[in-house]
Amino acid sequence: MNAEIISVGTEIILGNILNTHAKFLSQELAALGVNMYYQTAVGDNDKRFRQILQNALQRSDVIFLTGGLGPTTDDITKEVACELLGIPCRYDEEILKKIEGYFSRSGKTMTENNKKQALVPEGAKVLQNRWGTAPGFLIMKDQKILVLLPGPPRELEPMFLEEVKPFFQRQGEFVIQSKMVHVFGVGESQLEEQIADLVKSTNPTVALYAKTGEVHIRVTARAKSGQEAVAEIDQMIDRLREVLGDHIYGIDVENMQKAVVNELIAQQKTIATVESCTGGMLAGLLTEIPGVSAVFEMGLVTYSNRVKNKELGVLNGTLSRVGAVSEETAVQMARGLAFKSNADYNVAITGIAGPGGGTEEKPVGTVYIAVERSGKVWCEKHYFARHEGERDYIRMLSCLVALNMVRLTLVDGGKYGVKYEK
Amino acid sequence: MNAEIISVGTEIILGNILNTHAKFLSQELAALGVNMYYQTAVGDNDKRFRQILQNALQRSDVIFLTGGLGPTTDDITKEVACELLGIPCRYDEEILKKIEGYFSRSGKTMTENNKKQALVPEGAKVLQNRWGTAPGFLIMKDQKILVLLPGPPRELEPMFLEEVKPFFQRQGEFVIQSKMVHVFGVGESQLEEQIADLVKSTNPTVALYAKTGEVHIRVTARAKSGQEAVAEIDQMIDRLREVLGDHIYGIDVENMQKAVVNELIAQQKTIATVESCTGGMLAGLLTEIPGVSAVFEMGLVTYSNRVKNKELGVLNGTLSRVGAVSEETAVQMARGLAFKSNADYNVAITGIAGPGGGTEEKPVGTVYIAVERSGKVWCEKHYFARHEGERDYIRMLSCLVALNMVRLTLVDGGKYGVKYEK
Repeated sequence: MNAEIISVGTEIILGNILNTHAKFLSQELAALGVNMYYQTAVGDNDKRFRQILQNALQRSDVIFLTGGLGPTTDDITKEVACELLGIPCRYDEEILKKIEGYFSRSGKTMTENNKKQALVPEGAKVLQNRWGTAPGFLIMKDQKILVLLPGPPRELEPMFLEEVKPFFQRQGEFVIQSKMVHVFGVGESQLEEQIADLVKSTNPTVALYAKTGEVHIRVTARAKSGQEAVAEIDQMIDRLREVLGDHIYGIDVENMQKAVVNELIAQQKTIATVESCTGGMLAGLLTEIPGVSAVFEMGLVTYSNRVKNKELGVLNGTLSRVGAVSEETAVQMARGLAFKSNADYNVAITGIAGPGGGTEEKPVGTVYIAVERSGKVWCEKHYFARHEGERDYIRMLSCLVALNMVRLTLVDGGKYGVKYEK
Repeated sequence: MNAEIISVGTEIILGNILNTHAKFLSQELAALGVNMYYQTAVGDNDKRFRQILQNALQRSDVIFLTGGLGPTTDDITKEVACELLGIPCRYDEEILKKIEGYFSRSGKTMTENNKKQALVPEGAKVLQNRWGTAPGFLIMKDQKILVLLPGPPRELEPMFLEEVKPFFQRQGEFVIQSKMVHVFGVGESQLEEQIADLVKSTNPTVALYAKTGEVHIRVTARAKSGQEAVAEIDQMIDRLREVLGDHIYGIDVENMQKAVVNELIAQQKTIATVESCTGGMLAGLLTEIPGVSAVFEMGLVTYSNRVKNKELGVLNGTLSRVGAVSEETAVQMARGLAFKSNADYNVAITGIAGPGGGTEEKPVGTVYIAVERSGKVWCEKHYFARHEGERDYIRMLSCLVALNMVRLTLVDGGKYGVKYEK
């Protein structure tokens, strides 16, 4: 079944609102094994919408039409769709009563144009709208399936989940499942070369998505049962693990900070952070995760040398001799934090995020990251700049690398010894 | 000029990512007076993309193609567009050198497929990519304008603003200019009622965009010269100021944190933060801004009562009597921080971000924010929950309100006295 989505609404093509329901529907339909090929947005314009829909009827089996079901003269979706399909509409007394009830309950007067929402295409399944007045419709004609849904996500989403999704679940003979593999520390093109063989697989399929500092790999399998599909996916993930090892930081995990917090909670270990160039971003990422309070001991942001000395005991001699952005300072920051926090893991970041502050010896993007555990410190120097002045990128990468160092230590403490230590 | 957008990327039609750049481009082009009629998303599929582009070439003068400019074999946008337009491509040595430079700087090996990004359509204007390796292109042929942009918003947006927008500004016989007015602390519908008269204006136009906790008002004027347009815009902004007063926190300013840091720098005042529920997010927002090191003294994240007591001197008696989420604790946190930091402004946030931790008396979303200046503390209680468990929203709003309190004190110290003080 090939599907497409047509979103009808001038506010979308003027850029006033984000087309979030296209994402929602695409994601849901992908999980149901419906092939989504096109998303189109068009304004509330009879001629242009008509052309788009005609085109869609030629190339797709299933067409989702969102928006344009309301009471105003702008709302043309149902009318145009019925005309093109040659289906007459009739007033539905029950729906009309519901709309009247809605208006009397909310103390508003119902205007004449609201009646238009009670027009039902002949033979269509009416989809209840729990959060608004305009019902949706599922129309089947000439091997085509048209699904008309209201535009607002709070109306569309429950309507889809409660009435449309079950319909499509009954249609397919195959089940489609997928898992997302999260990979850190390998670039997209390098990764694509490393797993070139696996990417060619047709079932399960393997698809790459580049993110800041990481790559996500979606493994999707089609099988007779959910159990079979999952087994095939897991086999493919095992093969990915053989190539990528502990670059894989999680399966279907939200993000790196979630993976780290989950692992800290599981191991009942605590963490504390001290940040210079990332200025609270690392603490902010960790505390995004609900339940982090059980493992997050404290955070510090020490921008100035004065505060690094006063709060953490970083030696003024060190700061004047090798500077705040140095291995020695990073290590002293982590140790000073450990003394203060009593946490199991003490992470320190110091670097130059730019745009100013870079020198030839220490250009913008130079960052030292130190992780203290049980009195030992693992410190790494990184150079994150891709382009001058990429402050946000440098800060984000610094946080992710720091989190990854904590993760590697948590999942495989053995790593610790082989890296730099002092 | 009729325009449309074609977004190329399987991750969009599978619903893995939101098509945010379609919104961005539509909004920008609407402000430039370019008529946007269609937005289409299609996967990385040669046949389907080709059909969509052929169709677009028949109906539109300007076509924006986004995504599919990268190094992998999936990336087909440039190749298909050039083939359909009958334009040959050649390798550009300069671009190739830049890409090689990027790889050598970041210590990665450049794989063969990356060279493809240096292929330039004959006669096309090359658009620099400050944030990635794939350049964009502006192609004019047979009365059609094609603009090829990379998919990631952080690459696309600056490229559009710096190189594509000026091109379209030069096309019309009128000059179109706009300014963005940033408003904090008034809801969108309330704001719309307050400025209902102004929203009806046709030149300049006044358009509202709701954001998290704030509303942006875009004022756009069309005139014979840039100077004339700016004068009309500024008149309209004066009228907005009459209605909205100091709810307006900036004109064409990036965001609230930028407005606050700018003002701190201008007044040579320093700031320090201590956060409980926002966990470093406030410090992270402030330190997003380049140059903040001149005014940001220090930050603390004190999740546990133990650390609140040890680091800030919050009385254990207070914590056990009224709890960590209380006015008294917030005030003591701000005072303790002031003692430690010597900063001019000392901001404390303590609250319940959820999803757990709420009680009947203090439900999720209860947040106390305190700002200390010269020994006096202004403390406010807020209740931010829109829906149970909206952790990110509650945290972000807490930070924005705290920043706004600092801003109000900075721009009009007189406000200070009339609010709560102890």
